[in-house]
Amino acid sequence: MELDKIIGGITLADETAMVRAAARNDDLLKPLGSLGRLEKMAVRMAGITGQVYNRAEKRCLIVLAADNGICAEGIAGTPQDMTRWHIANIAGGVSGVGVLARYAHADLKVVDIGIKGDPECALVLPRKIRSGTANFAREPAMSRQEATDAILVGAELVREAKEEGYEILGTGEMGIGNTSSTSACVMALTGLSAEEAVGKGGGLTDEGLAHKKEVIRAALAFHKPDPEDPLDVLSKVGGLDIAGLTGCFLGAAHYRLPIVIDGAISALAALMAFRLSPASADFMFASHRSEEPSYGKIIRELGLAPCIDLDMRLGEGTGCALAFPIIGAACSMLSDMHTFEQAKLDQSYRIDIREDRS
Amino acid sequence: MELDKIIGGITLADETAMVRAAARNDDLLKPLGSLGRLEKMAVRMAGITGQVYNRAEKRCLIVLAADNGICAEGIAGTPQDMTRWHIANIAGGVSGVGVLARYAHADLKVVDIGIKGDPECALVLPRKIRSGTANFAREPAMSRQEATDAILVGAELVREAKEEGYEILGTGEMGIGNTSSTSACVMALTGLSAEEAVGKGGGLTDEGLAHKKEVIRAALAFHKPDPEDPLDVLSKVGGLDIAGLTGCFLGAAHYRLPIVIDGAISALAALMAFRLSPASADFMFASHRSEEPSYGKIIRELGLAPCIDLDMRLGEGTGCALAFPIIGAACSMLSDMHTFEQAKLDQSYRIDIREDRS
Repeated sequence: MELDKIIGGITLADETAMVRAAARNDDLLKPLGSLGRLEKMAVRMAGITGQVYNRAEKRCLIVLAADNGICAEGIAGTPQDMTRWHIANIAGGVSGVGVLARYAHADLKVVDIGIKGDPECALVLPRKIRSGTANFAREPAMSRQEATDAILVGAELVREAKEEGYEILGTGEMGIGNTSSTSACVMALTGLSAEEAVGKGGGLTDEGLAHKKEVIRAALAFHKPDPEDPLDVLSKVGGLDIAGLTGCFLGAAHYRLPIVIDGAISALAALMAFRLSPASADFMFASHRSEEPSYGKIIRELGLAPCIDLDMRLGEGTGCALAFPIIGAACSMLSDMHTFEQAKLDQSYRIDIREDRS
Repeated sequence: MELDKIIGGITLADETAMVRAAARNDDLLKPLGSLGRLEKMAVRMAGITGQVYNRAEKRCLIVLAADNGICAEGIAGTPQDMTRWHIANIAGGVSGVGVLARYAHADLKVVDIGIKGDPECALVLPRKIRSGTANFAREPAMSRQEATDAILVGAELVREAKEEGYEILGTGEMGIGNTSSTSACVMALTGLSAEEAVGKGGGLTDEGLAHKKEVIRAALAFHKPDPEDPLDVLSKVGGLDIAGLTGCFLGAAHYRLPIVIDGAISALAALMAFRLSPASADFMFASHRSEEPSYGKIIRELGLAPCIDLDMRLGEGTGCALAFPIIGAACSMLSDMHTFEQAKLDQSYRIDIREDRS
């Protein structure tokens, strides 16, 4: 499907279903509102599916991997080859997200959307747009067409997941240098300064961090991406994983599936989707509070709030794996708790039975 | 067992096991420390059991219910009969904690430790110390002996749970008026003011809140409980559920089982246990960030931090039910993630295999 058809097919969450879910929340056996944002999660799920009662048990975590040409500027603490090497660990289920996803009974779809070289693992789905981005310190990271194509890969992965019966999606990424691409996009889209938007990523020294800020500042001054045009930002200073995840968020809204944001990179992709189609935020859930400095600002613009706080900064989708059971629990709460009316009937029934025996 | 034997048998977490678990964390396939407090959870589990590899799958949520004589002062927004009525809903599995515990595959032990009148449900374990506390606006809530006996009920429940093979415990409570008993104990133990320590509980008006603060302030001025003597505080202005939960926390430390704190009431009981035996905090995990105002101060004194933030204020143990899968995931992470060494071997093996075939 073309990008404008995907965007054109996105509509807001179903208000009627949300009103019915909220009414049921208020009837349940508890002080009004006392389950806080767990109640709101259940209401939002109703808005996404159009049904009051939902499940979030069949889970898929989509992990997109790509390389970033900006690594040539020495902005990452890890050699670029690590992307190709580590994606095989992720697909093999032995990395952080592999273990946490299996624990949450979530399936992994691990995708090469732009790794430099081919990963040595048949479990990695080949959807390569190009072999890593160009070095955006010197030229645009990719063409506008490549950015669009990467978005479409993400949307298509969601379409497949919907067909396969998944009830909830998570978003992960892997790619040495992708926190640099993320920070550049965040600064372009939100106006945050390098001080506010650039973090240490996988693990930089203080000196390395100062250099990373300088490289990103200079690249933005050079490209002058248009903050009103997410595709311009994405193609000039973004990454293929970011573009693909943007497509996942747009696809989830189009195909009406709930989708969970992981950390800062995933959140930036969610912001890209939101800027392209504001209604897409209705289909998103935040998971954990990321340590990267831009995360809070983005998540507030999306109107969301994280539910988990564990000072995690691994990425890969690990936060989504931890959030799945909480969203599942919210659905179970709305479906399975009794109302005050039911409970009164239950207990008078029990008392009658006992009186009959006496 | 007598209380001083329980307390005397508590020793710190196993440092050697923690060092070994931390070393394994550092070998795993991820930037150092990038799974944040999830890594620390796995280390703390090792300290509790003395083993590097742990599971937190067989789960028991202990819910203690009791009535509070202070309700006679009109400090609760709900009639006192609700305790006896609602405990049957909890035991029947249709309340908030019932549904969330089932979702987390946790068993419930629902206990009458001091309900006024007998609950009409055979699933509630009868361990009543007395039929509700006295009105602490006029007289001590209970005798020192009753407070001790209630603590021993909690410790005994943990001993049974250990025998039954549970790997992790949660703590819940139900009892109209128990946020008043909690606030009074918190103020006595920590020196917090009524403004800081008294919240709206299950749902009070602003006027009701002002009255609640005044009743608690006056009771503390009347009884002058000794802040250095937790049993004095507990017996003068506490509750039987609080005392029982204090016993659960002491018991968990004595029998070396991990135990999860729920909200403000459960946290206050944890603080009581900590004041009686500082080593007991080594066996505690925080779950969700409670909305009650005293929670943050208590949890910091315990050296803990919540991992879930959902603005919940239901109690019953609902936060523990949501935290169980996160603690379980932490154990799984440490056991099942591969190390860098393993991953290098995996991948060279894979490459060898392919070369053999060509």
